[in-house]
Amino acid sequence: MIKTIIGEVDFLESLRGKSATFILSMASTKTANIDGITQAGIKGLMHLTPILDAEFLCTGAVRSLSNIAETPKGVPTPALITRAVHLLKPYRNIELLNLGVCHTPKVSYFKTYSFELNESGSIDTGAKIDSESVFKKGLDFGQNLNLDSDYLLLAESIPAGTTTAYATAKILGYDADGKFSSSYKDAPAGIKKDIVEKALQNANGAQDIFEKLGCVGDNMLIFNAGLILGAIDKNIKIVLCGGTQMAAVLLIVNSILQEMGGEISSSNLALFTTKWVATDSNSDIKALLEMLDFKINAYYADFDFSTSNHPALKLYDSGEAKEGVGAGGALCYAFLNGVKKADIIEQIESFLKQ
Amino acid sequence: MIKTIIGEVDFLESLRGKSATFILSMASTKTANIDGITQAGIKGLMHLTPILDAEFLCTGAVRSLSNIAETPKGVPTPALITRAVHLLKPYRNIELLNLGVCHTPKVSYFKTYSFELNESGSIDTGAKIDSESVFKKGLDFGQNLNLDSDYLLLAESIPAGTTTAYATAKILGYDADGKFSSSYKDAPAGIKKDIVEKALQNANGAQDIFEKLGCVGDNMLIFNAGLILGAIDKNIKIVLCGGTQMAAVLLIVNSILQEMGGEISSSNLALFTTKWVATDSNSDIKALLEMLDFKINAYYADFDFSTSNHPALKLYDSGEAKEGVGAGGALCYAFLNGVKKADIIEQIESFLKQ
Repeated sequence: MIKTIIGEVDFLESLRGKSATFILSMASTKTANIDGITQAGIKGLMHLTPILDAEFLCTGAVRSLSNIAETPKGVPTPALITRAVHLLKPYRNIELLNLGVCHTPKVSYFKTYSFELNESGSIDTGAKIDSESVFKKGLDFGQNLNLDSDYLLLAESIPAGTTTAYATAKILGYDADGKFSSSYKDAPAGIKKDIVEKALQNANGAQDIFEKLGCVGDNMLIFNAGLILGAIDKNIKIVLCGGTQMAAVLLIVNSILQEMGGEISSSNLALFTTKWVATDSNSDIKALLEMLDFKINAYYADFDFSTSNHPALKLYDSGEAKEGVGAGGALCYAFLNGVKKADIIEQIESFLKQ
Repeated sequence: MIKTIIGEVDFLESLRGKSATFILSMASTKTANIDGITQAGIKGLMHLTPILDAEFLCTGAVRSLSNIAETPKGVPTPALITRAVHLLKPYRNIELLNLGVCHTPKVSYFKTYSFELNESGSIDTGAKIDSESVFKKGLDFGQNLNLDSDYLLLAESIPAGTTTAYATAKILGYDADGKFSSSYKDAPAGIKKDIVEKALQNANGAQDIFEKLGCVGDNMLIFNAGLILGAIDKNIKIVLCGGTQMAAVLLIVNSILQEMGGEISSSNLALFTTKWVATDSNSDIKALLEMLDFKINAYYADFDFSTSNHPALKLYDSGEAKEGVGAGGALCYAFLNGVKKADIIEQIESFLKQ
């Protein structure tokens, strides 16, 4: 039910039956307002997607808008998958990181960390992120991280995040072309490439790594690179839940280690994603992970909607949406705890009937 | 699967996947010996019901009698529901409070707290409870409460408890008529009202709140009001598991706060009950909770025996028994942990086949 993308199965197996804290990084980049760049939300309201995802994940209802964030074609948010798993086999805790969304989700009782960050700029004109400060906030959070569970599922929700991730990998010198995923089935390679090229041109004068990240990155990427480096020595098992964006977080970690001449023991680090990302012919997450100088374990949940009759869910199988809100990580967590595929599908379908 | 009676869903959602300690308050009032007042046990042996419930909950067997406490019509104790949930998704701990039952349950290894309390008197002639002392014992217990789990499920077993609860709410000045539940489908309103009127007449001279409680209450009500006030500032999440009796505990808390001019933060306090109580047309738990000056969250488990063929269980759906031994709280706890209704019913049916 879970397949290996890269690495050994042992790390995965060591997590069977273990409890997990689910942390959702919510961030926003003005890049999402560029026409045709993302379908992760409602046009003109992309900045609300992470907030709505968090509300639905925590409470089963969206409170900052009347309906669940749907894409123009009606692809429902992957938060449905993450929530369904929570109902069948709850995470030990759900916590939220406000990495620059316009307001905190309207939920009580769920730990929400704020870091005084704002939405970052559109990368075609410059993200304008004080990336060293964001990185340090992540580092500090990681160093002080205390889980009352066995491992961390670290997820993200940030529309247009694959575009900033692509630009970030490129500016750091990685061979990134054609390797980054998209929320579209027919990835808008043209628009995306144009934007990334503009971003790189604008960032031309950037000298060091943090200047570069500040021009073309986003707060999710930079903060979580810090988080990993802060927590890595604390013997906490961290699973990045996401697709090529989370691979980009690892590439940032890799570049920082290269710059500092540092090394890490990555034996407590892994990545979980969906089948839709892992088998996507328009991107190549495995190739991105193979560029790391440290060993990494990555896996995907062998889950699809082939046995569902719901047309909105079928869109996932045809390549829309693919990943987000830790859907792939949630599915792996479910399978690691004996939850059945059929029960997950039934639960997701029940949300769409309401 | 869980519905809101009053309040927001957030408190409930924050308990998903969390571990719980189940504490059963066992108490006894001679009021239960009045003919036709309760069917929560065997005639002449009503005082044994809480002990048998505790034994069955902890061990799956009743040891102080040969059969599970059944009512004259053969309605099995709701302890079957609470035990079934424990087998499917065990509580972190089960602990017992002896609040005046004739002997401690015959179980080993389960923490049983004794408070040197005796069965209280029949309220038609006076309960004769040293209520200030009982309250202080509860307060002290609450102040020293340490859970090694995430929250507390606080349940009760006391035959005729709805009658003492009704009298208590009335003597404290609440508009209680027609709002209290009964273990009978056809609530013996006549008998009950007569008894409560007699109780109030007898208590006519009672001056302060504790004198009043001492005349018409029971140890469960008074002790648990103290427990809540003792534990409320300790940042412990407490869920009262029961119907209108637990609402009466909250009304006592409310009256004590009014008397003292005190306030509490009730954000860590909630009530879980059954569908049979929440939708009962002969009582009104919501109205009782709305009389509180503090905010409260209350929920019920959307569980019934409509898919069961067992005649004894069907009696629940027709309005017999309704609640007790924390059945509603157990069901909510089960649903919060992904246990399915069908599995709970199958488990309960298996007890009746033995």
